[in-house]
Amino acid sequence: MARALILIDFQKGFDAPQWGARNNPEAEANAARLLGAWRAARAPVIHIRHASRETGSPLSKERAGFAFMDALAPMEDEVVFEKSVNSAFIGTGLEAHLRAKGHDRLVIAGLTTPHCVSTSTRMAGNLGFDVVLAHDACAAFAGNMQMDWSDRPMQSDPELSHQIAIAHLHGEFAQAISCATLLRGLA
Amino acid sequence: MARALILIDFQKGFDAPQWGARNNPEAEANAARLLGAWRAARAPVIHIRHASRETGSPLSKERAGFAFMDALAPMEDEVVFEKSVNSAFIGTGLEAHLRAKGHDRLVIAGLTTPHCVSTSTRMAGNLGFDVVLAHDACAAFAGNMQMDWSDRPMQSDPELSHQIAIAHLHGEFAQAISCATLLRGLA
Repeated sequence: MARALILIDFQKGFDAPQWGARNNPEAEANAARLLGAWRAARAPVIHIRHASRETGSPLSKERAGFAFMDALAPMEDEVVFEKSVNSAFIGTGLEAHLRAKGHDRLVIAGLTTPHCVSTSTRMAGNLGFDVVLAHDACAAFAGNMQMDWSDRPMQSDPELSHQIAIAHLHGEFAQAISCATLLRGLA
Repeated sequence: MARALILIDFQKGFDAPQWGARNNPEAEANAARLLGAWRAARAPVIHIRHASRETGSPLSKERAGFAFMDALAPMEDEVVFEKSVNSAFIGTGLEAHLRAKGHDRLVIAGLTTPHCVSTSTRMAGNLGFDVVLAHDACAAFAGNMQMDWSDRPMQSDPELSHQIAIAHLHGEFAQAISCATLLRGLA
């Protein structure tokens, strides 16, 4: 059975300026290529959407930013789970759905690498799923790296933050693979 | 009620050379200071111990490295949970114990910052616990940062890895606070 593709938080609210500078502007286009290939192969696709409980968040349900990005919006027959914390496995039916469908092999992509993607990937690996992280279909924002606790604060650097977030996951919770390599494997 | 102190994986097996270079050699001494203060205050202490299922791991139950470090070993009346994945909340009674005892405020410290500490802190925050991360009672090893997926691999740097792992947690899953500040708050 093909891996289930799990797309995390590709919502319009991430276009808001308050998240700060980001890396990898190609993340959404890469994710859209994966989505197209999964649909063409009739392989399972699962969308995760963040419903923030934080006042003023562009991802709260009342805001226009709650909507999925146009190129990554679910089709009617695709499963959607809504979460309100970083992990797609907490407070959702995701794990039960994956177990019921026998999807024990996953591909994860989404926003943001250090927060919701990392947390969901960690839990997926620890729950026993075999996880591929489509690293170049993920991105990090300046706001994901908070240094005000440190005596030696570094400048927030979304590319460094993204690279190290993936380096912490790779080989421990998931295998990090590029979309090009993943798509060659499908073809 | 005082915060419950959760000490993660302070086991002799982390002295083995295979983890590579590490940062913060003071992590264990800082954790021991927290432990002493918690004991003096008769505040709750919980120890987490890793029972690796990986062949040859210094943390497998059959190896001497499974033992707690002497200065951080539990006393008879302290709770111990054994885990076999990174998260202290998966496959253990930790969450049920915390809920039963009403411990909704935690301090987390341990090894290693990017793997078991980060994963456990993320889940604690996402499960609704109020978490302080005692950042200088944690440490990272070279092996926590795997770059062989990248076109532009960086040298593994335990201090950078530790700093960014904490920067990803701080303000999102936990508040990162030094042991000195924590101990001043207790005094």
